[in-house]
Amino acid sequence: MSPDGERRARVALSFLAQPGDPVLGKALRTRTASELLALVTGADADGQAMLAGEAEDAELARALPRWRERLSEIPSTGRLAAWQEVGMRLIMPGDAEWPTQLDDLGDARPLLLWARGTADLRLTCVSSVAIVGSRAATGYGQHVAVEMAATLAERGTATVSGGAFGIDASSHRGALAANGATVAVLAGGLQFGYPRSHSELFLAIAAQGVLVSECPPDRGPTRPGFLIRNRIIAALSRGTVVVEAALRSGALNSARHARELCRHVMAVPGPVTSEQSAGCHELIRDYGAMCVTCAGDVLRHVGLPGDELCGALGPGGLRTGPSTPRDKLDPVALAVLEEVPVRGGRGPASIAVRAGVDLDTTLRCLGGLAADGFVERCGLGWRSRSPGSL
Amino acid sequence: MSPDGERRARVALSFLAQPGDPVLGKALRTRTASELLALVTGADADGQAMLAGEAEDAELARALPRWRERLSEIPSTGRLAAWQEVGMRLIMPGDAEWPTQLDDLGDARPLLLWARGTADLRLTCVSSVAIVGSRAATGYGQHVAVEMAATLAERGTATVSGGAFGIDASSHRGALAANGATVAVLAGGLQFGYPRSHSELFLAIAAQGVLVSECPPDRGPTRPGFLIRNRIIAALSRGTVVVEAALRSGALNSARHARELCRHVMAVPGPVTSEQSAGCHELIRDYGAMCVTCAGDVLRHVGLPGDELCGALGPGGLRTGPSTPRDKLDPVALAVLEEVPVRGGRGPASIAVRAGVDLDTTLRCLGGLAADGFVERCGLGWRSRSPGSL
Repeated sequence: MSPDGERRARVALSFLAQPGDPVLGKALRTRTASELLALVTGADADGQAMLAGEAEDAELARALPRWRERLSEIPSTGRLAAWQEVGMRLIMPGDAEWPTQLDDLGDARPLLLWARGTADLRLTCVSSVAIVGSRAATGYGQHVAVEMAATLAERGTATVSGGAFGIDASSHRGALAANGATVAVLAGGLQFGYPRSHSELFLAIAAQGVLVSECPPDRGPTRPGFLIRNRIIAALSRGTVVVEAALRSGALNSARHARELCRHVMAVPGPVTSEQSAGCHELIRDYGAMCVTCAGDVLRHVGLPGDELCGALGPGGLRTGPSTPRDKLDPVALAVLEEVPVRGGRGPASIAVRAGVDLDTTLRCLGGLAADGFVERCGLGWRSRSPGSL
Repeated sequence: MSPDGERRARVALSFLAQPGDPVLGKALRTRTASELLALVTGADADGQAMLAGEAEDAELARALPRWRERLSEIPSTGRLAAWQEVGMRLIMPGDAEWPTQLDDLGDARPLLLWARGTADLRLTCVSSVAIVGSRAATGYGQHVAVEMAATLAERGTATVSGGAFGIDASSHRGALAANGATVAVLAGGLQFGYPRSHSELFLAIAAQGVLVSECPPDRGPTRPGFLIRNRIIAALSRGTVVVEAALRSGALNSARHARELCRHVMAVPGPVTSEQSAGCHELIRDYGAMCVTCAGDVLRHVGLPGDELCGALGPGGLRTGPSTPRDKLDPVALAVLEEVPVRGGRGPASIAVRAGVDLDTTLRCLGGLAADGFVERCGLGWRSRSPGSL
């Protein structure tokens, strides 16, 4: 069978089987798409008869009738061409634009992807992070998603998400606002464009990033379809960040896919009083998700460049607060400094007794503290130059 | 030396050395308090002469002069009696009220504790958790601390904290509001009572719990004293919860003590936009602190009873959101249900094709769904009884 024939067969099969159909994925291990299509259409009657006899093919034999019932849905060449004329393109395994990380999905690998948009899917996803979360996001969650996606975009890392309200939309908007690329993986077809009220957002994504779907362009999404779609979001990116999720949110399903694919799973904490953060806290507490608070944390965790943007790093790569000269003092010098009054003054012997440090050490400390500008001599002994507070 | 003499010697030493003085703690491994006091006062001139010669005692020999400078601060018997008359009591190692978990501190174990309040310190701390955090707490942090301490109190677990503004005070107030016991470990003396504006809070704690300090009652706190005090808060309790902490907060020092003492270290997440939660997130992210969102999490983590109070527990002890009948359906039944319309109706063959499920399975699913009240027969085939939403 010619490569073109194989492509046409894959397209046809994508209209017969549900996305992620495990029986089809398994069958494609040992058969070409053309061979499978021949079995469905009945063109290969001999092969069909043989199937029933082999135990390992029994599953496939049982699937053929349900795929056959949809044969009428295979679009004509003209209809396919019409979709391509309005800007949709097909990306298949082996194509230059095929993101090879999708092959990690094994039997659940999509047959093909429909894509629309200016960005190259494979190149965009080389450095990408999935940002997902609740449709019913709070203002806090939306703010965090926008900021995170924008900062990632500034550092050259693309965002991958779904097309839903809430965190999905905020992530895309953040990336777009920073002139970055963003990838929206829709659960329904690209022409159907669910949810409809995101049509302007989808146009903006297509202009600067790319929209993809494994569904036929005119199909609407199904409830199970959202969960099945999530495996693609997880597989395309280096890691998945859950920004907000209630306890049973679909975003947790994305995180599970990411874990199963050995991708990094991250969650953003939030107020413990917010139901929309409860799923994130559960991921951190019970499922070993990394607690991330900013784009820098995300980049550091997934091993992408640009992580220096978030806070100063102390020894060992750990974040530190603003450093004050006082922080550099050892405990003995600190104890001595503590006993040097701001007003009036105090003699070294008195300071030594109060600080619980011997006189020699006290004098040495006072010398050092004076050199560093913390204390100064005065008529009454020593006084402090920087007011200390408890 | 009589036990009484040994007690008096400990009290005297507590006025000479700083809290947690490591030289004194080490010396007490091999010498009694009375022997050490004799070395300081010069009553044991021979012993003192011997010290200088032995390398391992050189440290002690160097410490004696600085302790000697404070000999005048040792209170008279009358002054000690006066403190006891106003409600302060001494608790020493070996006493019935001594919390033996403080022995885990090794050489840094307090010489003694001053206590004031109706609760028995040892019994109260058997089931206790430290709740600590920033003085500059937000409304969110204070709310969480109050709720957590109150719920712990309702479940019979006492709170241990400092005496500062912010999280410390909120924790005590929460425990007190729930009629629970609470333990305040002050960095300064009990009579000094820092901060002064907490005098009413301290009275309330004494009435229902207990205030303790290793400092002489009339001494004010020092800056290093707060950090040294933190080891006692960590040692008294089963684990330490940091509710809010900025990146360099002293509360993180409590967490470090807890970790060093093999106590549980926990942190409450908060908005990533809040500086006062940054230290908590750092503990979770970089130091392996347990992410806790409620008192139930804390009790579960430290292994105390009462953890059933927080959310429903699913299989494996994990929290679940509200369960709906739909959640119990398998993916195939869910796919079938998805294709049964709410209005009008649809035939089984059409449902089967749309759901991507074969007809036999579809009919079996429809039967089960009807039995569970999800769908019903109608003139046009089947219709859904509970509106589904994406």
